Amino acid sequence: MSKQIILGDKEYFSGIGKIAFEGKESDNPFAFKYYDENRVVAGKTLKEHFRFAIAYWHTFCGTGGDPFGPGTKDFPWSTAGDAYQRAKDKMDAGFEFISKIGAPFYCFHDFDLIEEGDTLAESAKRLDFITDYAKEKQAAAGTKLLWGTANLFSNPRYMNGAATNPNFEVVAYAGAQVKNALDATIKLGGENYVFWGGREGYMSLLNTNVKSELDHLAQFLHMAKDYARSQGFKGNFFIEPKPMEPTKHQYDFDAATVLGFLREYDLLADFKLNLEVNHATLAQHTMQHEMQIAANAGALGSMDANRGDYQNGWDTDQFPTNLNELTEMMLVFLEVGGLQGGGINFDAKTRRNSTDLADIFHAHIGGMDAFARALITADAILTQSDYSRLKAERYASFGTADGKAFEGGKLKLTDLAKIGAGMDNIPLQSGKQELFENIINQYI
Amino acid sequence: MSKQIILGDKEYFSGIGKIAFEGKESDNPFAFKYYDENRVVAGKTLKEHFRFAIAYWHTFCGTGGDPFGPGTKDFPWSTAGDAYQRAKDKMDAGFEFISKIGAPFYCFHDFDLIEEGDTLAESAKRLDFITDYAKEKQAAAGTKLLWGTANLFSNPRYMNGAATNPNFEVVAYAGAQVKNALDATIKLGGENYVFWGGREGYMSLLNTNVKSELDHLAQFLHMAKDYARSQGFKGNFFIEPKPMEPTKHQYDFDAATVLGFLREYDLLADFKLNLEVNHATLAQHTMQHEMQIAANAGALGSMDANRGDYQNGWDTDQFPTNLNELTEMMLVFLEVGGLQGGGINFDAKTRRNSTDLADIFHAHIGGMDAFARALITADAILTQSDYSRLKAERYASFGTADGKAFEGGKLKLTDLAKIGAGMDNIPLQSGKQELFENIINQYI
Amino acid sequence: MSKQIILGDKEYFSGIGKIAFEGKESDNPFAFKYYDENRVVAGKTLKEHFRFAIAYWHTFCGTGGDPFGPGTKDFPWSTAGDAYQRAKDKMDAGFEFISKIGAPFYCFHDFDLIEEGDTLAESAKRLDFITDYAKEKQAAAGTKLLWGTANLFSNPRYMNGAATNPNFEVVAYAGAQVKNALDATIKLGGENYVFWGGREGYMSLLNTNVKSELDHLAQFLHMAKDYARSQGFKGNFFIEPKPMEPTKHQYDFDAATVLGFLREYDLLADFKLNLEVNHATLAQHTMQHEMQIAANAGALGSMDANRGDYQNGWDTDQFPTNLNELTEMMLVFLEVGGLQGGGINFDAKTRRNSTDLADIFHAHIGGMDAFARALITADAILTQSDYSRLKAERYASFGTADGKAFEGGKLKLTDLAKIGAGMDNIPLQSGKQELFENIINQYI
Amino acid sequence: MSKQIILGDKEYFSGIGKIAFEGKESDNPFAFKYYDENRVVAGKTLKEHFRFAIAYWHTFCGTGGDPFGPGTKDFPWSTAGDAYQRAKDKMDAGFEFISKIGAPFYCFHDFDLIEEGDTLAESAKRLDFITDYAKEKQAAAGTKLLWGTANLFSNPRYMNGAATNPNFEVVAYAGAQVKNALDATIKLGGENYVFWGGREGYMSLLNTNVKSELDHLAQFLHMAKDYARSQGFKGNFFIEPKPMEPTKHQYDFDAATVLGFLREYDLLADFKLNLEVNHATLAQHTMQHEMQIAANAGALGSMDANRGDYQNGWDTDQFPTNLNELTEMMLVFLEVGGLQGGGINFDAKTRRNSTDLADIFHAHIGGMDAFARALITADAILTQSDYSRLKAERYASFGTADGKAFEGGKLKLTDLAKIGAGMDNIPLQSGKQELFENIINQYI
Repeated sequence: MSKQIILGDKEYFSGIGKIAFEGKESDNPFAFKYYDENRVVAGKTLKEHFRFAIAYWHTFCGTGGDPFGPGTKDFPWSTAGDAYQRAKDKMDAGFEFISKIGAPFYCFHDFDLIEEGDTLAESAKRLDFITDYAKEKQAAAGTKLLWGTANLFSNPRYMNGAATNPNFEVVAYAGAQVKNALDATIKLGGENYVFWGGREGYMSLLNTNVKSELDHLAQFLHMAKDYARSQGFKGNFFIEPKPMEPTKHQYDFDAATVLGFLREYDLLADFKLNLEVNHATLAQHTMQHEMQIAANAGALGSMDANRGDYQNGWDTDQFPTNLNELTEMMLVFLEVGGLQGGGINFDAKTRRNSTDLADIFHAHIGGMDAFARALITADAILTQSDYSRLKAERYASFGTADGKAFEGGKLKLTDLAKIGAGMDNIPLQSGKQELFENIINQYI
Repeated sequence: MSKQIILGDKEYFSGIGKIAFEGKESDNPFAFKYYDENRVVAGKTLKEHFRFAIAYWHTFCGTGGDPFGPGTKDFPWSTAGDAYQRAKDKMDAGFEFISKIGAPFYCFHDFDLIEEGDTLAESAKRLDFITDYAKEKQAAAGTKLLWGTANLFSNPRYMNGAATNPNFEVVAYAGAQVKNALDATIKLGGENYVFWGGREGYMSLLNTNVKSELDHLAQFLHMAKDYARSQGFKGNFFIEPKPMEPTKHQYDFDAATVLGFLREYDLLADFKLNLEVNHATLAQHTMQHEMQIAANAGALGSMDANRGDYQNGWDTDQFPTNLNELTEMMLVFLEVGGLQGGGINFDAKTRRNSTDLADIFHAHIGGMDAFARALITADAILTQSDYSRLKAERYASFGTADGKAFEGGKLKLTDLAKIGAGMDNIPLQSGKQELFENIINQYI
Repeated sequence: MSKQIILGDKEYFSGIGKIAFEGKESDNPFAFKYYDENRVVAGKTLKEHFRFAIAYWHTFCGTGGDPFGPGTKDFPWSTAGDAYQRAKDKMDAGFEFISKIGAPFYCFHDFDLIEEGDTLAESAKRLDFITDYAKEKQAAAGTKLLWGTANLFSNPRYMNGAATNPNFEVVAYAGAQVKNALDATIKLGGENYVFWGGREGYMSLLNTNVKSELDHLAQFLHMAKDYARSQGFKGNFFIEPKPMEPTKHQYDFDAATVLGFLREYDLLADFKLNLEVNHATLAQHTMQHEMQIAANAGALGSMDANRGDYQNGWDTDQFPTNLNELTEMMLVFLEVGGLQGGGINFDAKTRRNSTDLADIFHAHIGGMDAFARALITADAILTQSDYSRLKAERYASFGTADGKAFEGGKLKLTDLAKIGAGMDNIPLQSGKQELFENIINQYI
Repeated sequence: MSKQIILGDKEYFSGIGKIAFEGKESDNPFAFKYYDENRVVAGKTLKEHFRFAIAYWHTFCGTGGDPFGPGTKDFPWSTAGDAYQRAKDKMDAGFEFISKIGAPFYCFHDFDLIEEGDTLAESAKRLDFITDYAKEKQAAAGTKLLWGTANLFSNPRYMNGAATNPNFEVVAYAGAQVKNALDATIKLGGENYVFWGGREGYMSLLNTNVKSELDHLAQFLHMAKDYARSQGFKGNFFIEPKPMEPTKHQYDFDAATVLGFLREYDLLADFKLNLEVNHATLAQHTMQHEMQIAANAGALGSMDANRGDYQNGWDTDQFPTNLNELTEMMLVFLEVGGLQGGGINFDAKTRRNSTDLADIFHAHIGGMDAFARALITADAILTQSDYSRLKAERYASFGTADGKAFEGGKLKLTDLAKIGAGMDNIPLQSGKQELFENIINQYI
């Protein structure tokens, strides 16, 4: 991306310049201590590994409202009286931030860019307007669109779901909205397109026909995919798992659930996963588990970087800071060869009581540094420590003739039983988990 | 089953006779208040619907040990000095209980029936001995074997898993053990065979190759299935999902995860699910959700009846008593046409401090009554209330020409968008969840 | 309360009349099946036992917004252009509902009644206006105010807490607001005054001085109490425990925590607890546990009736329907002699997708019926079953001379040890939990 | 402690010598990388800060059994045929380990040291025997006893609790056992005595009289305390909170609950808290929260070092490794002036599948290093960063005259309201949580 700062008519984050890498000895809170975008680790620069993207919704739209009170953040880019001007101002602020923080990508929901209109036609017109402007800004900043998506959950019409709404009229409306969002994504050179389930799920099983709703969802995804392909879109489609919230049960519960759905409905060739840390932990998985499960299917597409609160049971979307968690994530990341087409976006929000504009910088700097440090650490573990060797040794017995025959499908149960019959005293092989854990901490 | 009580050399539950149905006005704690096995509901007797099975492990083997102390229950059938005699005594007690409580089925792990020997050969010999005796007892009591399974998790050799053990020697040993357990099941006319994952999962992702382990598991299941089929076994294979415990992450996390695995590895034609209530709730699902997901795939095979504690985070395996939960479960049960080949076993244990032998009766009577009451209630809801009509009405719009075209795959996204384009003001349709919930309570 | 329906200028819930008791055979969804307010149970009418109160905030103000979208409910009483008129219209709708559902009480936060003004002075003026009107409506309807409270959490100024705010200016502002809310409560004859912690807690321990904040909270409560007493207020003050949400850690975590705080800061003489079901379960307790803990201290003041979702980890505030849970709650309720000064308010909201006005009736009818049925059941258990006797028998040994000496503090450890020394073989006494559970279900 | 290794008749951990500090560049898995016991931080050596203690139960007794299988670890010190000899061998192994790892303290339950006898008299005799031996070993090794306690939960007699057992006979027996454990602790110069609730709690509220049981518990603690004081014991008594497991609800739920209990029953002068990390997180608190709450009451006595699994819901007692969690703990540790009388014991166990004796070393080395690193980091944060200043600034307004008057209890609500009345536009003060979090990571 361009090294320069991209401003609009005014500077929103005045007093804060381009965030530079200063190294870990720096005491400057507005400098990177680990994220040197040009540093090469495992054959790629950090910039290439992470493909960091700024999330439009939290960063430029989220004012901090929660179920117990309205927003606390009076963004200076949201004061114009006209929706078109507000959208332009927000985009100016957005690209100012993106260029100052130095992220190569951004991503959005349709109505993050500009508020939804009263009619579909008006919304389409608005989208057209702001994507024209986005094209200019992208070019000026050298920023690319990691992915686009449609907000199919905020408007009351979607209160019972979008593609899985019991009312076909709502499904049709969602179809129209997705078509426009796909068009916008393609227009801006978006590299991927995301489906987050929003309210695709149920509040009560009592009033819900789950089978029909899942069939409808699959139908809808096929249609959207076919349309995008017909328009020349070559990117990936991503589904983002989440287990609950806002609905009691979200259909895209976790990686394994979504992969099963994609297999059942023959969508796995085009769809991969966009995994989120906090969604993983809400589903009672570690993020590294979810990454591994996705990678097993060749479907580790992209990631939402954030973290949850380990004691609270809802999506807190905090910025990532846990070094042990991130290091273990980056181990999987490197072992499976990184992401398939996507990048790492910060689907994280500053706390409701973090009301200074500078807090947005602190948050992203902390998150980008934490990822950088974790990747560097993970690479050291993989290249300098006994970690990989110790892990491989646990499975060494599958390198024997019998082990290979088993893996190759050449044994019947009677064959296996014969091999096993002689083995009444197999020595126990310690899993040595504590030693593995010590290696992690040695390298952090 | 036979109406008579089947005793061995002595009566273990003396003072308690055959449990009779006395109706809900009865104050007799040793009588059924709702479970009249001959009562016909929705075209089948309760006995046919539920196919209740007594779980050998908890009921006759489980002495109440937990991580903070050893067992509290000195079972009088466990006092003989010789393993063969202890097994015979336990089976006498078992069939006495089964015949007194009036369950048509039972189910077991191999080493529930008789303690494991020091060698595979000795274990096989023991199994042969006790299954000979079981055959006699089954015939005398008219009791059938719902399913058999192998305990692949208690012996230290399985501390790192069985089919997913990193050591191929352990995999082979497990193969030999499963072969014997399949033979025993077939010998006793077992209608199904179950795989509960036990320690198939991981304690730490750091030392685990998940992809290999899942491949090994699939390989193993194929081999077991092929062997059983070659021996003439016509029954179902069941996998029992559980999300965690004893391992940090169990591979068979929940219904959706297991169904995805079965699809991926081409096992869905032979394998169905054995769902457990407490495993469902540990996975953050309701049991009714898990039942629906399994039924969507035609794979609702069998059920482990129990309940968890809603505030504690481990598998408490308590006897089912929650009337709202059970009624909602039975709604799904009736709507999807019941179980595919399996039955309902009580994988539930009396509390560690429930040390009277009579407590085992209280527990099972309470559980069977609760199921019976729930099924009767659910049937009334389906046949007498507005429940089904109200639910169907929510989806009425899919009966229109456009709705049908959508469901039939005849619309492109552009078609759908055209339909949606005219719908800027779709009236909101209330989900009426509170009304649905009131209907449930009206009928309980 | 008056038997008549109290309308304002228009009827908001037209087509729905006064909800009558019709008995459990009724199929009328707009009738009570169990809640006969005049039915006498354990010496009091149901009306006297429960003292049901309608919660102003959810019922008349809550439009269904959540973190993923704005409200869905366009209340017809919220359309006027002027805040004063909107407040009056809302109150008309409120008393229409209250009189139709037949609740003897209601309760509110200050700014539920009327929207907060831009200044404290304007807010006070508004409150004065609407409480004048409330007085009229209360008189007409024969409805009483169960309690009032101040909303010290929605306005952004309280984002870091109110009484525990690190900024003393905010503490002072909260003081002014509480003074006005106390005045309003007293003016309307409110029987109690509630403090729900709102944002009294912390988002991060890193930036928080917990000790100071708790000291400030205690100081604040003393001042509020002293003021109200000086104004002649004789009612109770209630604190409502909640463990988390909106803050990461709420200071009033659960009953035990709040009681400890009240003891430490010498507030227990004036303050009791207002317990909420969903807050109990978020704290990993059953509601019946929280009730017992509060009653042990003579502090079971009042209750927020609702229920949480057992699989989701946030405050869902659903209407109460679980019969087993409610019956166990009512057992404690009767055993400890009911509530100290308070009543049962429905701090529950219809789902975001329950958008019909009629749904508000379904929800309250279901909740009131469920409570009534549970109380009737609990009374039967206490008066007709073995429950109380079986429970007392477990503790019979404390009726011996030694047992009494122990309870009376007359034994030293050496005495106790001497008694214990002879007891190497104490027979195990079964807790008989399953039998207790069967009794509950027998009576539901 | 002595620098030398203390062996008995044989060396159990042969091949492993005294663990030395080698610094963070060392690749030796059997060396400390951070724990230099003589390093001075904040005015004390690391040894003095932590007072590390080895937990007898997990480390020398715990063979890895869990609810799904028996132990996996055949400890070479557990092979003798005689209980006395086994106890001696175990103690030899124990002091060998303690002296090799270099811990200045150890701690135990009575029957960790030697197996319980069939009678109280035999148990007392055994305890006498082994404490004689322990005295010798302590002297030889220079090791001290951090605390003793009695196991009042494993033996079936305690299945319904010990001091809270409904059967007074069991209470008396527990009294005798505690007397002996106190005697043993005093004999060995134990610096503290711990009560962990074990089964003090309930499995079902239905059969439980909570008020009586809590009264009994308080009575029991008073008696134990009085006895110990009469024997000249000057140390602290500690209660260890835990929210659940093995009982459904443990009476000593968390720090706040226990402090409330101690206040209510006038025990706070003699009793402090022994906090455990995994118990904190099971109670939905961070450990740093629990530490702060205890310290607020001057009751942060001692700590059980371990960690839980963030996705699993039971006590996993893993060794501490999470650097962010530990650093935040050590911040509180230093801010409140460390522990009151206690130390840090490793109530942590190697995984069931960590079956090598060397794993016990890896586990403790990792845990001690993680604590050392965290303390060093926390000290740097407190002495070199803006952390303390930023935190203090948030509360600066309480240094004004009005703020001081408020804190000093000199304002009435009317005064406060007057101050607040002028403050309609209080500027929002950001909590700057993200900046605080970045500071933590900068110093790790």
